[in-house]
Amino acid sequence: MAKLITPRSEDYSRWYTDVVTQSRMADYSPVKGCMVIRPHGYALWENMQRVLDRMFKETGHQNAYFPLFIPKSFLAKEAEHVEGFAKECAIVTHTRLKSVTTDGKTEIVPDPESAIEEELIIRPTSETIIYSMFAKWVQSYRDLPLLINQWANVVRWEMRTRLFLRTTEFLWQEGHTAHATYEEAEEEARRMLDVYATFAEDYMAVPVLKGLKTEKEKFAGADHTYCIEGLMQDGRALQAGTSHHLGQNFSKPFDVKFQTESGDWRHAFTTSWGVSTRLVGAIVMAHGDDNGLVLPPRLAPIQAVIVPIFKGNDPKDAILAAATEVEGALIKAGVSVRLDARDNLSPGFKFNEWELAGVPVRIELGPKDLEKGSVCVVKRTNRAKSFVPVANVATAVPALLEELQAELLAAAKARRDASTFEVDTYDAFKEKLESTGGFLLAHWCGDGACEAAIHEDTKATVRVITFDGPMEKGSCVRCDNPSTRRVHFAKAY
Amino acid sequence: MAKLITPRSEDYSRWYTDVVTQSRMADYSPVKGCMVIRPHGYALWENMQRVLDRMFKETGHQNAYFPLFIPKSFLAKEAEHVEGFAKECAIVTHTRLKSVTTDGKTEIVPDPESAIEEELIIRPTSETIIYSMFAKWVQSYRDLPLLINQWANVVRWEMRTRLFLRTTEFLWQEGHTAHATYEEAEEEARRMLDVYATFAEDYMAVPVLKGLKTEKEKFAGADHTYCIEGLMQDGRALQAGTSHHLGQNFSKPFDVKFQTESGDWRHAFTTSWGVSTRLVGAIVMAHGDDNGLVLPPRLAPIQAVIVPIFKGNDPKDAILAAATEVEGALIKAGVSVRLDARDNLSPGFKFNEWELAGVPVRIELGPKDLEKGSVCVVKRTNRAKSFVPVANVATAVPALLEELQAELLAAAKARRDASTFEVDTYDAFKEKLESTGGFLLAHWCGDGACEAAIHEDTKATVRVITFDGPMEKGSCVRCDNPSTRRVHFAKAY
Repeated sequence: MAKLITPRSEDYSRWYTDVVTQSRMADYSPVKGCMVIRPHGYALWENMQRVLDRMFKETGHQNAYFPLFIPKSFLAKEAEHVEGFAKECAIVTHTRLKSVTTDGKTEIVPDPESAIEEELIIRPTSETIIYSMFAKWVQSYRDLPLLINQWANVVRWEMRTRLFLRTTEFLWQEGHTAHATYEEAEEEARRMLDVYATFAEDYMAVPVLKGLKTEKEKFAGADHTYCIEGLMQDGRALQAGTSHHLGQNFSKPFDVKFQTESGDWRHAFTTSWGVSTRLVGAIVMAHGDDNGLVLPPRLAPIQAVIVPIFKGNDPKDAILAAATEVEGALIKAGVSVRLDARDNLSPGFKFNEWELAGVPVRIELGPKDLEKGSVCVVKRTNRAKSFVPVANVATAVPALLEELQAELLAAAKARRDASTFEVDTYDAFKEKLESTGGFLLAHWCGDGACEAAIHEDTKATVRVITFDGPMEKGSCVRCDNPSTRRVHFAKAY
Repeated sequence: MAKLITPRSEDYSRWYTDVVTQSRMADYSPVKGCMVIRPHGYALWENMQRVLDRMFKETGHQNAYFPLFIPKSFLAKEAEHVEGFAKECAIVTHTRLKSVTTDGKTEIVPDPESAIEEELIIRPTSETIIYSMFAKWVQSYRDLPLLINQWANVVRWEMRTRLFLRTTEFLWQEGHTAHATYEEAEEEARRMLDVYATFAEDYMAVPVLKGLKTEKEKFAGADHTYCIEGLMQDGRALQAGTSHHLGQNFSKPFDVKFQTESGDWRHAFTTSWGVSTRLVGAIVMAHGDDNGLVLPPRLAPIQAVIVPIFKGNDPKDAILAAATEVEGALIKAGVSVRLDARDNLSPGFKFNEWELAGVPVRIELGPKDLEKGSVCVVKRTNRAKSFVPVANVATAVPALLEELQAELLAAAKARRDASTFEVDTYDAFKEKLESTGGFLLAHWCGDGACEAAIHEDTKATVRVITFDGPMEKGSCVRCDNPSTRRVHFAKAY
């Protein structure tokens, strides 16, 4: 706790790691590339799950659970898909360990006799296994749409990992749906993208751009991929969620077909969509400051902390009694509150600790407050203080939390807008990318080779082709070929 | 849906599989030994999770998440532990697939160059990885107790599997706690056993015996193991949950130690405890009948279904309006209700379908009911009908659900008690086991070799040495050596 957090201005990447580990959201594990999500981080993820799960159910989806293992041959059925995942997967080959003693040294090794017939891949995503089941369940147009979601762990063997943002194993949800027509699947893919955008903005307080991925950036096996993209404080973009229209790319190899009302057979159109624990990292990077986490009130596991202040001859019992009363009033008002009555720590130490933990509102209650019958309410973001009569706490604190939620979104939006630049020449593009980062709105010819060259030159990628344009003719920032519109480039996590 | 369910009396095992698959709780997957949990089964599991999670939090535990992968060397650190799990584990050895073409035939195989340095085991349970982290987090007596729970998937390579009851991959929760003293760990292990027993009886309506496992049946690595044991309708026992006092067996090899208040260092005492999706199978087997599932109201995803009845010239609109009114009243009363207004299916078909699905209460509303301003309420268990004025539905249905919940527990208790027999000779033991099954209360000398011989002879095991005795001197049912008490034997799932 006493360790210092590297300031953002000094080293943003170290700041991020310091905040995540020192606030006890996550820790490095002894398994390469895998993290441990500690209670403070997991409680945030649980709150995110709860809201998303409700939104999925309100849009007609049901949860189910499919095997962790994907038979090798399943992955291979969709050519782009296996190409996309073959280089980063965990492969199970044996099922028993045995002791072997060589030169007096005993070692435990996979028993060669336990080699399995067909190797199993730990799911990097579950299209293949899920559509193999859909093929059993879907017979008639009456069975459609089939709207399924799964909360699960997945594994992608990443070489360079970062807590929450990119880990070998991560937690996520993956929606998988089957529809009778292309149009219905398209509607679904767009609907779930909207759900993600609403969640990002209304709960995470992270403003996002909505739109299409380029062919190069789309999901391996998708007809096309939609995404939401946020901008972090260091000017890098972060893909916060994707929704894929898979066309009949999976329903054909896995034979998900149905009899239409008129009696003929047709392959279904499917979609998949997902968000992951990466969103925890997005919250850290979007709102955190040099004192630690800043959690959006609607998702914060602890929304308000009460710190009683007493020393020496102060009326400790009376202060604790008043603090308990405030706690009760807040619980009744639906606020998630913690009374920090630990008596071996100073108020200052507690302030730092709860600021580090990102608790949106701190409530101080000392002898003077007790006398006046009020408490001192402090905002996590700017430490602005206000004095609130105890009788008003139950209305004032929830109102302040909502105010804070709105302020966080507004601040993030202002930062994003201030870091979005139109650039018209390749030199300006490169210069801006190096000096400030951010979203670069530039013309692009639409050619994948040109996109790859820009990436090669600058490490920037087309993050999103936004739905809301603007449509405006111009010429490609790199090759000068004609372009119909600007797209958002950025370096990304 | 139209398929027949094998009657229990004909073949209990086929009855179980028929009910689970036809009610759409689960399905076989293309991966050997792994199942797919379908929405109806998963919704039940979610309800169970919700209740258990609340009970864990009320007893001071916090959720966290640890890696899926256990380094081989970790498993090996506790001798009994690796012995217990080495023969049934999924081992990851490679991280990339590559295409190989031989004689014009292309195959995808693990890339030998991607062999990992130290093989990883998919967690069969997480003691080793979790205590390696506890070692980092625990320094002082002030850090104890550390009370962690994880909801996760685990893998044990089972040869003979059965939906929910024994699958290669399953979902569970595993609690892991560290304490300053043996006594505190003992208290914790007993406390969580009580939580499980309360959950089984008050929510699942499955009566359970609480007690100790024998040395032979305890968890691999535990000092001692407590369990709850239920009895299924076919007279076989089912272990429904276990709670282990691990002593210092893991804290020593993983070096989980802390400085006491007086300044010296001591290894912590740890516990672990878990229940799994096996409990879904327990509910099926404890309450189901030849018409399908019977779900306990407190856990049923759908507690009541409304089936409007109309044909020909009946006042369909008026009936649907009244049904919608009843639905609204029940939602307001906190009942999870479904109005089945599908117009392509007959009422009789719907009755069968919802009985198969185990919905505790069916509400029928036809023209005569409409005239009388009442509905016909039917209990799933015995199809007992009662007529309830629409105005009373919001109080009558919740009361009926609670009545049903109590009846299920009472019926299961009566069955369990009627299937518990004192036996005093080995011949009677064997005869009873074959003729009726059930719990056999018999004297046992306490010797593991004798226990193994009984298992070898009869397939029965000591299920539990119950806390509440009875203490009564006698002689071992097999070897005649002196015994201090009877224990519960049974064949088990």
